[in-house]
Amino acid sequence: MGRWEPNTRGRLEQAALELYVERGFERTTVAEIAKRAGLTERTFFRHFADKREVLFAGSGALRDLCVEAVAAAPDSATPMESAVAAFDAAAAMFQERGDLVRQRQNVIAAHAELRERELIKLADLSAALADALRGRGVSDLIARLTAEAGTAVFKVAFQRWIDNPGQRDLSQLVRECLDALGGVGAGR
Amino acid sequence: MGRWEPNTRGRLEQAALELYVERGFERTTVAEIAKRAGLTERTFFRHFADKREVLFAGSGALRDLCVEAVAAAPDSATPMESAVAAFDAAAAMFQERGDLVRQRQNVIAAHAELRERELIKLADLSAALADALRGRGVSDLIARLTAEAGTAVFKVAFQRWIDNPGQRDLSQLVRECLDALGGVGAGR
Repeated sequence: MGRWEPNTRGRLEQAALELYVERGFERTTVAEIAKRAGLTERTFFRHFADKREVLFAGSGALRDLCVEAVAAAPDSATPMESAVAAFDAAAAMFQERGDLVRQRQNVIAAHAELRERELIKLADLSAALADALRGRGVSDLIARLTAEAGTAVFKVAFQRWIDNPGQRDLSQLVRECLDALGGVGAGR
Repeated sequence: MGRWEPNTRGRLEQAALELYVERGFERTTVAEIAKRAGLTERTFFRHFADKREVLFAGSGALRDLCVEAVAAAPDSATPMESAVAAFDAAAAMFQERGDLVRQRQNVIAAHAELRERELIKLADLSAALADALRGRGVSDLIARLTAEAGTAVFKVAFQRWIDNPGQRDLSQLVRECLDALGGVGAGR
């Protein structure tokens, strides 16, 4: 395992991702994931409800990270600047995990059921961002608009980052996309 | 039935919505829907796969309407103006159906499974809009951004329209939300 000894949960996640990439999501069993991680099935089920949930286990932590970043944005930040602070925090986490994030995304892209689950998690994230913005005193309408449109932009930037490994960092892509959208909206 | 004699499909849709509102979505059976419409179960299944699909039967027509509106936008229209033309077409359809749209949305709002289905249909709409924009020669990035952010704004405007019956029309709300978003983005 080298210098970094991941915890049980992390070992299960890594083993699952390896197997999903090697054999495909459908053809991988929980028994195989546990075996690859050097653990028992029973241990797997103490951490995850099923093999699908391994892929979405990080979404709660991601949401918390984003909500905290919005709350911590300076008082002078506009609603969209506060949302961008959340996306910067998310981007830093994704950059750090790098290839794991790409592997995960490729598995999800290959399965309609997983893509749908990802959409639901994104909608949850947007709802949490809107709540965090309302917590800063932003009106309900502006909070919803900023959260929904911001999440939409982040989704496009994230896909571009996935499709172009080793190029610009994700934070930079989010800013470019927001700027491009300003240009798109201009003229109406 | 008065002056307007709806077709078989329309009668089934209306009967289903009435029953979902009266008794709840779960407690309504296909047999009851067919009976209320004065038709047989067999006829129901010639039109819809199950009772859930009655609620989403219009999404194909909505998508086609939006795609056609983007294609028909003047050459001088910016990408977002083309998307707004699509939302105007959708808004006109929703305005015309009025209470039926509100009833449908209330049924969907009450069930997580239906809300998830609605998210998937919205993602399909966004993908179709992006395709239509690429068909106008818009770059892939701008097409995706416009479609995703535009759909996000439409979603917020639509919810506001549902929550405030008899107030501003939906087209107007879409424009107000886009303008508000311009203000939100300004300053970064």
